[in-house]
Amino acid sequence: MTANKKHCKIVDCTIRDGGLVNNWDFSVEFVQHLYNSLNEAGVDYMEIGYKNSPKLLQGAEAAGPWRFLDDDFLKEVIPQKGHTKLSALVDIGRVDENDILPRSESMLDLIRVACYIQDVDKALELVKTFHDRGYETTINIMALSNVMENQLLDAFKTIAESTVDVVYIVDSYGSLKPSDMTYLVNKFREHLPNKRLGVHAHNNMQLAFANTLIAAEGGVELLDASVYGMGRAAGNCNTELIVAELPSTKYTVRPVLDMIEKYMIPLREKEEWGYLIPYMITGILDEHPRSAMALRNSADKDKAVQFYDRLTTPEVVVKP
Amino acid sequence: MTANKKHCKIVDCTIRDGGLVNNWDFSVEFVQHLYNSLNEAGVDYMEIGYKNSPKLLQGAEAAGPWRFLDDDFLKEVIPQKGHTKLSALVDIGRVDENDILPRSESMLDLIRVACYIQDVDKALELVKTFHDRGYETTINIMALSNVMENQLLDAFKTIAESTVDVVYIVDSYGSLKPSDMTYLVNKFREHLPNKRLGVHAHNNMQLAFANTLIAAEGGVELLDASVYGMGRAAGNCNTELIVAELPSTKYTVRPVLDMIEKYMIPLREKEEWGYLIPYMITGILDEHPRSAMALRNSADKDKAVQFYDRLTTPEVVVKP
Repeated sequence: MTANKKHCKIVDCTIRDGGLVNNWDFSVEFVQHLYNSLNEAGVDYMEIGYKNSPKLLQGAEAAGPWRFLDDDFLKEVIPQKGHTKLSALVDIGRVDENDILPRSESMLDLIRVACYIQDVDKALELVKTFHDRGYETTINIMALSNVMENQLLDAFKTIAESTVDVVYIVDSYGSLKPSDMTYLVNKFREHLPNKRLGVHAHNNMQLAFANTLIAAEGGVELLDASVYGMGRAAGNCNTELIVAELPSTKYTVRPVLDMIEKYMIPLREKEEWGYLIPYMITGILDEHPRSAMALRNSADKDKAVQFYDRLTTPEVVVKP
Repeated sequence: MTANKKHCKIVDCTIRDGGLVNNWDFSVEFVQHLYNSLNEAGVDYMEIGYKNSPKLLQGAEAAGPWRFLDDDFLKEVIPQKGHTKLSALVDIGRVDENDILPRSESMLDLIRVACYIQDVDKALELVKTFHDRGYETTINIMALSNVMENQLLDAFKTIAESTVDVVYIVDSYGSLKPSDMTYLVNKFREHLPNKRLGVHAHNNMQLAFANTLIAAEGGVELLDASVYGMGRAAGNCNTELIVAELPSTKYTVRPVLDMIEKYMIPLREKEEWGYLIPYMITGILDEHPRSAMALRNSADKDKAVQFYDRLTTPEVVVKP
């Protein structure tokens, strides 16, 4: 393990991933306070939402503006950018390339493309478009814990020859243990020596911060986090923890504590995320949290044993 | 790192450490259900309380019976012991040796002695008494993150020559990072080659489970945990996580989930423990959580910034 944590950069995903909790219902004041807090804390990037197109995503009309970022709107929200750069995520098949301005005319600095392993080629096509328009780019391969080694090695070959700047290790199900993270970081470094790496961890087993630290020690540069861990289901690595513990003089935790006190603690009383037993169960079973999210929205939300039995019983009978 | 996690044993501390949260106000039914759940789950030890003497601890009259364990009472609570052994913790200066029966007449199998580094000699005297009466023994050196290397090396010499079976690495303030845990485990293994090791982690930075896994990978055998993480302040490594993830066929998580559903979730609605910002702050500052516990008991319990400023301001003026 190398110890080059001083080269790490933090990508705060509170608005983008947290929006999956509250349908992006963040006020402009909330987002502005977050931006100022992150900027003052020294956080390197703020992922302020998705840059997907509402034309390509049905039934999302009720979502807040951070789901379909608009450059003119962003200029009103953040009239004066500080040190903290802005990032947006796009999904394969949901982005309209005509929406993407050249970087010189945009508020955004970084565009990240999320994809499953079978869509790496499509993702890299998108990456090339964004790259050619001047953006920093990443490819975020989701659900790595469900990817077979041969698929991964094939993908590495394509990625190594592509224009993408940063390749992300994404623990979508929060099922990776520290030893798994070490294994994946070494695998990515071995096969992608010419690429920088990133990590996006989930907290189903309370391992998001630990896995992020371990990735950083292994040479991973871009570290995803969100304030108070806000993110879908069990949530993410906590920005306050990574800001406090990364050995760099450029970070200071106090502004993040201020954001938590003023906005996140009241929000957590209305919205739910974090370590909850159904999410722990999907984590240990290495599967998508959607069944646990449905459970938490039902009257049976604390029926842990019944839920566990349902997910671990192979002889499921489909009723006619 | 060795990978001898198959030799690990789990020590559930829910009653003993969790008692620090609710003044040991657990019903007999609660403790019986916990014992049966742990036994069914394959957990190796249940630490059922403190074996201190009420004569040596003033102001503790209101505490529940698990604070001052009595052998006759224990026999009523657990008339039939299963696979799971019983453990008790004692503190230096608070235990009356006359209270300790020979193991053959006691319900207890393991007695653990907690101490700070300066009391290692006194702790080992107690250990010898328990050892001579037939018990398994451990010494749990608290607050290791505040111990200087020379003190530790001195203590190792005495410990290596003692009768103690297991030596614990205790992260009292929840301030150790995975790299710190790896460092300590290696240090303990190097200087105590003839002793088995244990780990007791706290969750102030959400690292208790990760640090416990890392210690296990490093050869540590006894792993402390508590159900739903219940323990003082930020709490402990979660028993449900370690039971689910330790690679051994002897453990099964379902009975622990049952305990959580029936008892721990309702209890957590009345009592508070776990990852809360004041505990995170004492964790990152590497200090005892008592100031954070006082804050959580006050009207200012969510005033994170003010609390952080108070702990990080050196020029504290003591009023006349």
